[in-house]
Amino acid sequence: MVETTETTMKLFYYPAACSLADHIALIEAGLAYTAVPINHEKKTADGRDFLSLNPKGYIPALELEDGSILTENPVILNYIAERAGKLLPQGLARWRVLEALAFMSSEIHSAYQPFFRNFPEVEKARAREKLTGNFAILSAQQADREFLVGDTFTIADCYLYWVLTVVPKTGVQLPDNLQASFDRLKTRPSVVRALAEEGL
Amino acid sequence: MVETTETTMKLFYYPAACSLADHIALIEAGLAYTAVPINHEKKTADGRDFLSLNPKGYIPALELEDGSILTENPVILNYIAERAGKLLPQGLARWRVLEALAFMSSEIHSAYQPFFRNFPEVEKARAREKLTGNFAILSAQQADREFLVGDTFTIADCYLYWVLTVVPKTGVQLPDNLQASFDRLKTRPSVVRALAEEGL
Repeated sequence: MVETTETTMKLFYYPAACSLADHIALIEAGLAYTAVPINHEKKTADGRDFLSLNPKGYIPALELEDGSILTENPVILNYIAERAGKLLPQGLARWRVLEALAFMSSEIHSAYQPFFRNFPEVEKARAREKLTGNFAILSAQQADREFLVGDTFTIADCYLYWVLTVVPKTGVQLPDNLQASFDRLKTRPSVVRALAEEGL
Repeated sequence: MVETTETTMKLFYYPAACSLADHIALIEAGLAYTAVPINHEKKTADGRDFLSLNPKGYIPALELEDGSILTENPVILNYIAERAGKLLPQGLARWRVLEALAFMSSEIHSAYQPFFRNFPEVEKARAREKLTGNFAILSAQQADREFLVGDTFTIADCYLYWVLTVVPKTGVQLPDNLQASFDRLKTRPSVVRALAEEGL
């Protein structure tokens, strides 16, 4: 368990949900944080009403030391990287990382809804078609490199890891190079530690 | 028509589509640009194959002077603002703008698909419910202020304008303060000019 103090940032999460990307990023960044789970009644493990903290009601949410709450996965990841001064390259590569985050959020994560919420098969089939096209785009970007953007691990890889954890629920066949990325990411110490801290 | 030179940025757009947000931002930013429409065969008005420029196939796409193509609306808007050194405040307000862009993209724009693509009524009804909740969140953020974040016009207002143009297609009742924002934004010179340049 991570040391809890009044002054660390708090990441509100559901185990295995997309907040895992931020959890991994906080570990990679070397920032002090407390990972605070939320239960099904939307109570936080530190006894607060999550909806009063974050009216959107969804995770991830990051509470800063001053009590401000940041939401939206690509934005929290960007915040963590800027604050740590790592996980985000300079120049055009920075925009490529932010672009990959936006793409995974609005085009891939959103297409997972029919599987998370068990929508009718016609919607799942349409989502599979969309996901297949979107994974082809990610696959072309990944190519035969180790990381999604540039030569170093970035916040795009944090989110990519989570995105790839969901694929088995969808029935979509992952391109080989993305499967290889997933297999590499699974053994990364920050990923192993985040999963352990979430009880997975 | 905007002056075309080989060295300006090019914004690829469909008239009235979400690229309108970037078009407005480019005007507000005072940056040199050429707005290049795409036809239904995915040919650009300057005679190129859009899919070869942007394999994602969707707009907006911004071609930089060196030929690099940026995609994803929140990222292009962020790029325009940083490059111009305006339309994006400092400190926590900067994160609030980026958060609003991510929210409008992944939670509102994505919920417009059933109306754009005429999905079955059950999907439209579910989208209306989601949109109603999401507009309540935006409405609380807008409150009785002139702009969505802080005291100045930002890239969040550029995207908000476009987001609000779609509402009549959905049958969702907009909160009064967002309707008032829309009515104000419609008369803003940058909005009037962008609409005229898109032939609307």
